[in-house]
Parts: sequence; structure tokens; C-alpha cells
Amino acid sequence: MSLVTVGTVAFDSIQTPSGKADRVVGGAASYIALAASHFVREQELISVIGEDFPEDFLSTLESRGVRTNGLVTIKGGKSFFWEGSYHEDLIGRDTVTTELNVLEGWVPTVPESARDSKFVMLGNLDPSVQLSVIDQLYEPPRLIVLDTMNFWMDIAMENLKKVISKVDVLMINDDEARQLTGHKTLPLAAAAVHEMGPKTVVIKKGEHGAIMFEEGQTFFSPAMPLEKVVDPTGAGDTFAGGFIGYLARLGDTSWEAKKQAVVVGSVMASFTCEAFGTERLQSLQESEWHKRMSQMRAMVKFRSIRG
Amino acid sequence: MSLVTVGTVAFDSIQTPSGKADRVVGGAASYIALAASHFVREQELISVIGEDFPEDFLSTLESRGVRTNGLVTIKGGKSFFWEGSYHEDLIGRDTVTTELNVLEGWVPTVPESARDSKFVMLGNLDPSVQLSVIDQLYEPPRLIVLDTMNFWMDIAMENLKKVISKVDVLMINDDEARQLTGHKTLPLAAAAVHEMGPKTVVIKKGEHGAIMFEEGQTFFSPAMPLEKVVDPTGAGDTFAGGFIGYLARLGDTSWEAKKQAVVVGSVMASFTCEAFGTERLQSLQESEWHKRMSQMRAMVKFRSIRG
Repeated sequence: MSLVTVGTVAFDSIQTPSGKADRVVGGAASYIALAASHFVREQELISVIGEDFPEDFLSTLESRGVRTNGLVTIKGGKSFFWEGSYHEDLIGRDTVTTELNVLEGWVPTVPESARDSKFVMLGNLDPSVQLSVIDQLYEPPRLIVLDTMNFWMDIAMENLKKVISKVDVLMINDDEARQLTGHKTLPLAAAAVHEMGPKTVVIKKGEHGAIMFEEGQTFFSPAMPLEKVVDPTGAGDTFAGGFIGYLARLGDTSWEAKKQAVVVGSVMASFTCEAFGTERLQSLQESEWHKRMSQMRAMVKFRSIRG
Repeated sequence: MSLVTVGTVAFDSIQTPSGKADRVVGGAASYIALAASHFVREQELISVIGEDFPEDFLSTLESRGVRTNGLVTIKGGKSFFWEGSYHEDLIGRDTVTTELNVLEGWVPTVPESARDSKFVMLGNLDPSVQLSVIDQLYEPPRLIVLDTMNFWMDIAMENLKKVISKVDVLMINDDEARQLTGHKTLPLAAAAVHEMGPKTVVIKKGEHGAIMFEEGQTFFSPAMPLEKVVDPTGAGDTFAGGFIGYLARLGDTSWEAKKQAVVVGSVMASFTCEAFGTERLQSLQESEWHKRMSQMRAMVKFRSIRG
């Protein structure tokens, strides 16, 4: 199996200026797997849910080639639940409730079928869980991508640095890059991350796009300008899923492929912002993301300068 | 004469995390004219200064082809003075002092030699001054570019809207685009600006780049990622000067030319951020901005996606 993702599968209740969604399916791994399913026919998912989780979402995943034998259901358990409320600018947000539930104390088991995965996506969750997944792999994969956030820098920096030292690509946002490294500018922050292990650093800037650094090279992709943003929840996870899904499809980890993958990630994330939950990722057609890829190309293309 | 700029020529005292500069030459028109001087051999400048202004800066302008017969010196007057202090993030800043001095009540006179200018840059100042300059032109220029800021939206919205209705290109930042139009997303804000007159809207986002909208087309340029930002004062004016200077050099106002001009503006602005005041714009060599233009191209270029 070429792609395996570990991450949360959860319920979210979300309030944004556009409205409210109550207990919709969310979690990093849901967004990642659905985004990647537009690029790979088969993939593995490692996560944990409670008995309260809807069967039909699992069927949706399976119908899209996401194998769920690594998705453990805890009998009598309740799924991870997050409730949040976005500010008017859709950037700031307040967490109203976080119920870890089945996530508490969870030790992941990588299914036999996933232990030789070539592409490994460590979705945002406890670094100790991410470490455990890496340890269960039979041999070094071609690419390990790590997504994380400031929360883990605050409470589990030591473990987080251990994970960072073992991955090929680190994905964080610009504030987190500053927090992790103590550097104010992104080129210096990226250089400091390289020193920690990862060859490649992808810095996500939300509506301001994403910038990738690798061995002295820099690539930038804008975010797709949207007329209306309904709910940005899961946009970063979707970005990650598009990024690694596209690379797994190509079986290519070159700089050229990664540049395309950043644009793919940006395009996929733009769809997630257009509706609550994973809805838009499920209805999305190939012709739609193709069209946005072309728009992204046109948006940054300019003729070489006359001297 | 093909290019004329109206704007402030002033003294700035600036504190940033990198240090402090005391009474260095600044003002929108200084940055605009110096940036444009890298592209056009001759240009006109309309502004007002006091007797306290250093002769050698005027000589610098003239040596770079900036004609100063539109630059009025008020006998016994003091030049416009601004003192500001930047926050740690180099985005927020506090104004410590603003002394309008000779700017107060100033009514500009467009020199005879500038009244048939084809490219007109209205640098950020009182909209009534910008209006007066437009009124003194003999015939409609090929391109009028307007730069303004939230300050004028707060205290002179009516006059500002009059100027906006008469220009081809409006340059503002993202917060100002939202304030001016009441729309939260940039595509909707740009559409609302089009309704007010300008065919083209350029939204400056500082370190996050610039996005341009024109007749359903969108172009995005990242900002040059810098390892160290010393002083962002004048970066927006420099962007404007690079933009219009490049178009005036080509004598071209097509979409293709404007796209290049946005990148030129971004590149020129990056140099201004590397030092206090206008220093870096004066020392800048053609080979240096050429190199950054190539880096900008490389930074956004990606291969078309395999299906």
C-alpha cells in the first residue's frame, strides 16, 4: 500500500459568520484521506473512534479506497469532539469545547498491510502517537510528511522535536514556524527547521498562500481567492492530503513534483473552505480541481522582463 | 514628459526592532520617484518642502532624472515630519508625531512641462490635492494610478471617492479594501471598487504579496522572502513607483505589462525594506533587481499538472 495517514477522525461543532454546523464529521485524518482520495485509488487510515460514529461516513471512506482496518472502534467509547467559534475575520477562533474521549491514552497499531507504506502522512495529533507510527514501519518510507501545531509546541516540545528529526517534510503555519525556531522571518525559520532534520519545510499561511523551502530553493503558491469563505476548518489538513496524495499518485518526491503538490494542496484546501465539514471534498469532481489548477497557473504567470 | 508624481517629500524618524533612524528623507513621492528612476530617464515631481530640506537630496533626485521644478520650497517653512515606531512584528506601528508643516493648506501647481504627462502617479496624500493635480492636466493621461490609505477613508471619504472615480488603477492594502467597500473577501472588494471607477485594483498585502484584479482576471505576486527586514517604511510607495515606472518605460498599459509591473513593484519594495529610508533605492544596481525578478519567476513557476 503506498499511502498511510494517521490522524484524528472526530466530530466538530463549528460556528462561523456564515452559520453553524452541529457535530459534523471532521478531524485531520478525515480531511487528509478525503483530499488524497482524489489522487490515489487505495490508502490506509490509522485512527480511533467511538461507537457513536456514523457507519455511513466509514462506508464513504471505503467507497473512495480508504481502507479502515487501521481505524479502531472503542466499544462504549465516544469519538473525539471539538467545538469552536470563528471570529468575523475567519482567522481568529475560540475553542468552546475539546473532549478527547477515545483519543486519551490511545496507542496506535499500524496494520500489517500499511507497514511498508512508501508515503506516510502524520496528521496533527500528539507527537507520541506520530512517533509510535514511525516506529512500527518496516523500512524507511520514501516520504514522511508531518503536520503539527503550536499546541504541541506548548506541551510536548521534546517529543515533537523527536518526530521532526525523523521526517522529510514539516508542515506548519507562519506563527508556528516563528515559535518553533525563534526566528522572525520565514527564510531563517526554514533554515533552522532544516537543521532539525526535515529537508523540506512547507509553511502554510491560510488565505495568504503557502511557501516551501528546500535546499536553498523557494516555491510560493497563492491561496485561491474565494468570493465567500464558509468554514476554514480542515483547510490545513486538506492541504496536507492534497500534497501527499498527489506525490503518492506520481510516486515522485522531486522538487518539481513537490511544487505541483503545493499548488494541488492549495487548490484542494480552497474547496474545503466553501462548505462546513468534509461535504465539498466529497462532492468535488476532477474537472473542478483541474479548472482551479489552471486558474492558479494563470494567476502567477508573467512574461520575462524586458531589460 | 511621460511620468509625473505628486506626493509628500518629508523627514521621517523611525524606530524598528533593528534600530533607529533620525530625520531621514522619506515621504511617498521620494520613494516613488527613486523607484521609478530605475526605469525612466526623466520624470516630474510635484511636492512641497520647507527651507530645512537638504540640498543634496534634491541633487540626487535631479541626477537621477527627476525634474524638481514642481517641487516648491516654502521660505521659512518646515518640511512635513513623521515619527513612528514599529512593533516587534514589523506590521503594527505607532505614530509618535505628525507635523504637517508646509503640507498644511498646500495647493499644488502642475508645471507646464508636466501637464501632458501620459503616466500620472497620485501618491498617498490628501485627496483634494490629488484632485487638483488631475484637474490641471491638459488631456486624459494613458494611466492614472492612485495610492491612498485608511486615514483618508476616515476623514475625507467624499473627496477620496471623487478621486477614485477618475483613476485607472487603485492601490490599497487588504484592510483598506475591506474598509472602503464593506466586503470581507478581496474578489468581492475588487468588484465593488470596479463599480466606483477604476478598471484595475491592486491590493498590497505587505509580506504576503500583492494581488491585482482587472476585468475578471486575477494576478498574484508574492513578496520577496527576506532574511531580515530592517524598515518597511516606504515599501508601499516603492511598490507604486516600480509599478508605474515600469509601465511608463514600456509605454504599455496592457494586462501583460501590468502583471510584470506588479512583480517589478514587489521586487523594488523588497529592497526598500532592507535599510532605513531611501538608501537602498539609491545604491540599487540594475543587475540586482534583474536577479530578483528571475528569482520571483522561479519561485512561482510549476509544471502543468498531469491528469
